[in-house]
Amino acid sequence: MKAVRIYGEKDIRVEDVSIPEPKDDQVQIKVKYCGICGSDLHAYLEGWGLPTVPYPLTGKTVPITLGHEFSGEIVKVGKDVDDLQVGDHVAVEPLLACGKCENCRAGNYNFCNKAVSTDGAGNFLGFSEDGGMAEFANVQGVFAHKMPEDMDFELGALAEPTAVVYEAIKKSHLREGQNVAVMGAGPIGLLEAVLAKIAGANHVYIVDVSKVRLDKAKELGIENALDPSKDDVEAIIKKDLPNGVDITFECAGVQATFDSALKVTKRTGIIQVVALYAKPVTMNMTDDLIMQGKDVITTLCYNNSFPNVLGIIDNHKDLFKKVVTKKVSLDDALEEGIKALSTDKSQVKIMIDPSL
Amino acid sequence: MKAVRIYGEKDIRVEDVSIPEPKDDQVQIKVKYCGICGSDLHAYLEGWGLPTVPYPLTGKTVPITLGHEFSGEIVKVGKDVDDLQVGDHVAVEPLLACGKCENCRAGNYNFCNKAVSTDGAGNFLGFSEDGGMAEFANVQGVFAHKMPEDMDFELGALAEPTAVVYEAIKKSHLREGQNVAVMGAGPIGLLEAVLAKIAGANHVYIVDVSKVRLDKAKELGIENALDPSKDDVEAIIKKDLPNGVDITFECAGVQATFDSALKVTKRTGIIQVVALYAKPVTMNMTDDLIMQGKDVITTLCYNNSFPNVLGIIDNHKDLFKKVVTKKVSLDDALEEGIKALSTDKSQVKIMIDPSL
Repeated sequence: MKAVRIYGEKDIRVEDVSIPEPKDDQVQIKVKYCGICGSDLHAYLEGWGLPTVPYPLTGKTVPITLGHEFSGEIVKVGKDVDDLQVGDHVAVEPLLACGKCENCRAGNYNFCNKAVSTDGAGNFLGFSEDGGMAEFANVQGVFAHKMPEDMDFELGALAEPTAVVYEAIKKSHLREGQNVAVMGAGPIGLLEAVLAKIAGANHVYIVDVSKVRLDKAKELGIENALDPSKDDVEAIIKKDLPNGVDITFECAGVQATFDSALKVTKRTGIIQVVALYAKPVTMNMTDDLIMQGKDVITTLCYNNSFPNVLGIIDNHKDLFKKVVTKKVSLDDALEEGIKALSTDKSQVKIMIDPSL
Repeated sequence: MKAVRIYGEKDIRVEDVSIPEPKDDQVQIKVKYCGICGSDLHAYLEGWGLPTVPYPLTGKTVPITLGHEFSGEIVKVGKDVDDLQVGDHVAVEPLLACGKCENCRAGNYNFCNKAVSTDGAGNFLGFSEDGGMAEFANVQGVFAHKMPEDMDFELGALAEPTAVVYEAIKKSHLREGQNVAVMGAGPIGLLEAVLAKIAGANHVYIVDVSKVRLDKAKELGIENALDPSKDDVEAIIKKDLPNGVDITFECAGVQATFDSALKVTKRTGIIQVVALYAKPVTMNMTDDLIMQGKDVITTLCYNNSFPNVLGIIDNHKDLFKKVVTKKVSLDDALEEGIKALSTDKSQVKIMIDPSL
């Protein structure tokens, strides 16, 4: 079968590979759509998250089949999987976890203590095990979630990035009626703002320097789209909310946006970090955090949320369809997909369709 | 009456001043004991927290009577105070708060939005209003908490620093049976470790480079007292707890102890910042926080906790008495009290006794 394989930094090849039979606890799915994520771009540009030594849970090193945002139809079922059948439509939760360690047992399987590698390889399919940028993929039955009746497969493939922003909302303890700012209107920032609205936030502000992205935010119903190169973001927010927002979702990952997040968040508020940071961040702990009663909360992946997330997407089909901006073939995944994410700011979610 | 007055950096004078009649919502107390806090030392050495422009809620600027850890006996009662009487023994919660703003109404009166000054003056008696290093003090009735029957006044004066560490435990959501590290065995670190034990923590480790302080920790029942200049702190903790502690209370306030806190805390754990930081702190957000599922939680002062805290002290009288290491007169407050805090590491809590 055809698969998008990554060998290391700046080395992606579309190859013909064979796929093994699914293990007893796995199902094999025919991939229908696989979204491209910013982390795929980081893997390509910097080798981020790739296993260079055998990954503890899988024994795998590069080359690996990329792709961790995918949906498909089950074509084979391992003998220990008793709640899925051939023909089921599923969205894949692409985590690798032992299911036995303290964190797994506590429900925090996104922090599985066995899924930690010395080289920092990612604990998901598409990084430390073959993923969804291929015609077929094997996934653990417990991580294959049945999609709602009649849901389009491209919406199913949105479950993974939506689960990322859902987890951030869970960790921030956002309540309906609270007010929110989102730093960065890339794919994750846009989804975060959309989900904050769905979660009942009153004011939702989104901040980015890209006009194209701010226009996309408005198209997605986020009216308060601010450009810090032109707008006085703090003044605009504090005109509506003199004390600032309750929670700022930091979806950009640089010092400047972290600092802006501190400025627009009210005393006793939350800085909810969603983006990964390429560089260390410096903070004035006493004046900007302690004296203001602000906490810095982090989030990574998701746990126990795919059914909820699939329900949310199903309830807002038309909105989520606007998030998919392009579809490409496996052959075009690198040039028209992964690379386009960094050069074409009009793209939100580019989907690979293996049937093209 | 005699009072310890601060005029600014390195300028403390013991003077004879008059005290006004208590306002309608205040009581006047005859001060029995007033503890000396690290923040009094910062006020003296660096002018930290002193009002140089009129403080919003009080209109006060320096000079101010120092002291925010005090207990005493009520001698006058304002006409609007209906639940206190002359003769009552009280511990003072020394906060300044409007009682009307969003944060006050939410119970977070330690972050009163009206108690914010452009010069960063502290929102407590002893900083932006006259405090307890004097023979008498006026305090709001709502902040004068009746002490348990027969409690010694020196234990009552410990309520304030104990409320500081109690709030940190509240914010960290420590549960009985969890494991804890405390960075720094100064007065606050020691009390934090003591309170973690009282809260039912299993292992409690305390870390400091001062042998005198570590000995004091042992005297207070904290057996796991570690010196990072001699002990491999991470290795020792992880021998007992391979994944690390659930919560680290950072009571030292420098980059090195923040970094140590990250190392000994388990994935999904909490870095509970208690100390003030003199300098900005830098953190590797992605590798050390996000990928580990660790959050940075802050704490400032306390709210709605003095009755609980007084009960805890009353239940552990003998233990808390060991915290008081010296008693001095108002005249000796600077030389034997405030300065001794920085030079004599055997001191935990030095109390001023105005009757001396």
